[in-house]
Formats: sequence, C-alpha cells, structure tokens
Amino acid sequence: MPKIVDHDARREEIARAACRVVARRGLDGLTLRDVAAEIGFANGALKPYFPTKAALSEAAFRYVFGQTERRVAERTRSLRGIEALRVFAVEVLPLDEVRLDEARVVLPFWQLAIHDPAQAAVNDRSMDDWRTSMTRWLEEAVADGDVPDSAPLEPAVESLLNFMLGAQVTAVLDPGYNGPRQLREQLEFHLQNLMR
Amino acid sequence: MPKIVDHDARREEIARAACRVVARRGLDGLTLRDVAAEIGFANGALKPYFPTKAALSEAAFRYVFGQTERRVAERTRSLRGIEALRVFAVEVLPLDEVRLDEARVVLPFWQLAIHDPAQAAVNDRSMDDWRTSMTRWLEEAVADGDVPDSAPLEPAVESLLNFMLGAQVTAVLDPGYNGPRQLREQLEFHLQNLMR
Repeated sequence: MPKIVDHDARREEIARAACRVVARRGLDGLTLRDVAAEIGFANGALKPYFPTKAALSEAAFRYVFGQTERRVAERTRSLRGIEALRVFAVEVLPLDEVRLDEARVVLPFWQLAIHDPAQAAVNDRSMDDWRTSMTRWLEEAVADGDVPDSAPLEPAVESLLNFMLGAQVTAVLDPGYNGPRQLREQLEFHLQNLMR
Repeated sequence: MPKIVDHDARREEIARAACRVVARRGLDGLTLRDVAAEIGFANGALKPYFPTKAALSEAAFRYVFGQTERRVAERTRSLRGIEALRVFAVEVLPLDEVRLDEARVVLPFWQLAIHDPAQAAVNDRSMDDWRTSMTRWLEEAVADGDVPDSAPLEPAVESLLNFMLGAQVTAVLDPGYNGPRQLREQLEFHLQNLMR
C-alpha cells in the first residue's frame, strides 16, 4: 500500500523547524536547505510545500501566532474578567525559552510587515483578536466590581498591549531587567493600577 | 585653496540618508548605491566613510538613537520629576512623521541586535541611559509628593519603558489604535496611575 502523507502535519512540522532556525540565526539565516536539514528531509523536499523563502517565513510567523492563540484559548477557556486578562498576558509575555524563541521570530516579522501588506495582515488579524478579547475581559472585570467603571477602557487595553509587545523586545535584548520574575511584577503593577 | 571637507558632517549626512532609505524600503532595501543617490554623491563616494552595508546600518541606528538623545536632553534640561518623565516619554513616543520613520529604523535594528553583539551594545547603552534618567525623575516625583513613596520604582520604570518600546511597533503597524492622540492618552493613563 502506498504511504499516506499527512500534508497538514508536514507543513506544520516544516513551519516549526523554520521557527527554530529563525530564532537561532535570524531571518537572514533562514534557508530552505537548513530547514530541510533540521528535520532530516532531503534537499528539495520542502519546495512542494513552501516554494520560496518568503512563503516559508510567513508560515513560521503564522505558526508562532497560532501557538500563542492555542495556549491562550486553552488557558482562558473557563475564566473571565481580571483573571482571564492576567492569564492571557502571562501566556503572551516571553517568560520561558519557548516563548523567548517565539519573540525571536516575532521581531524580524514586525520589520517585514512594515513593507509587506501580506505579513501586515497576519499581524492585524492577531492584534484585532487580542484587543477584542482584552476589551471583553476588562468589561467583565468592571461588571465584577474588580475595576472601577471610571477606568478608560481603550487606553487601558492598548497600553497593556503595548507593554506586552515591548516586553517581546526587552526580554530578548535586555533580559537583566526583563526576566520572568520582573515581567510578572510589571504585569501585576499594571493590573493593580487597573483595579484601584 | 583646496576645499575643506568636514568629515564628521559628511558621516552624519550619510547616516541620515541611510535612515531615510531604511524607513522607506526596509533593511533589505538598504544599499550604498541608493544612499549615495539619495544625497547626490557619486557611486563609491561612501566607501571611505562606510565600507560595508553593516557599517552603514550601524551608523543609521546610532544616528536615530543620537537624535532621540539630543531631543530629550534639550527638552528635559530645566525639568524634574513627573514633568521631566512626561516630556521624555513624549519625545520617545512616535507621535510625528520624523519619529515614525525613526521607529521604522529601530524595528529592523532590534532583530539584528538579537544576533549581533555590536548592535546589541548600541541598544544596551541607550536603554541604560534611559532607565537611569527615568529612575532619577521618578525618585524626584516621589520627593515632590507627586508619586506615593509606596510605588515600586523598578516595575514602574521598566513597564513604562516596555510600553514606549511596544508603541514603536504599533504606531507603525497598527496606527488606527496608536495614533498621536491615542498614544498620549495611553501615556497619561500610565502617569495618572503612578500619581495615585
């Protein structure tokens, strides 16, 4: 019988390997050849899935965003209000090696997205999902009496989002001040300010 | 008489032109040829100043950091405490086209700095200068009675810094929620939280 190949699983395996290569060597260090070697594929075996480096890097970025979505959905499923917001932020902040590698993929992605509308669209979709969820959780926190109803919701949501994105940069480039313990303290500082 | 060339001024002119090219076309679009054309220099005239693209891009990044330092030093000279902190943050936030272009240079710089210790050192020096100033202004704000002395200084400084860095990303990629008016509101939200 012919071997049945799960093409979706293979695409994901390749995207995950591309992330590892970008995290280790930067976007300039991403080649189809190195990604193939990373997972023991023959040279040329990636071409049917990702014919160009651009297609491969876009897949890597989608993979990182997808991983974050998946973790967030799992962890916040049964939560609401301020607790959901806290758990969400903890999942997005780069607090372990896996998420630090994700940040090392997101940083080069951002600079591509400035000049590439397709990459920018990937980013926009995630950011819109995030702000929709964050706004809902914050409204729940107000309804629960955890956050005063005088709190300005849009600046509260967007400044928290900006804080989490800045932390992607500093956790990688400035870890002495932005290690896991410190980022959690900064997050609590934000949340406690919201809750006063 | 032979024409006297001010080599420092010329280096700065070239670095400024390199910033414009990176802002418009990304780091991949930066070539010695395009920068020479941008300022009407002959091909090859840049080589004595910046022999490689790497040297040119490092000069562009140093120029952006230098411009921010210069503006901050000018504007905060006669200020202290919470007002100095506010004016500093307003200078760093990308609130006009000049600073949006600077953000378009900083984003590609970050991803280079992940894998290049020389670029990382440029970043570290600026960040250390910033947090030293921010900590001093915050201590003054406590002494002035504007910020309660129960405020945790390090999380307050670092989370504000992370917010300002995240805003470099979103002002460029997500301007609908991070235009000048909105970023100022987010900054005020931060400062008002500090002052309670």
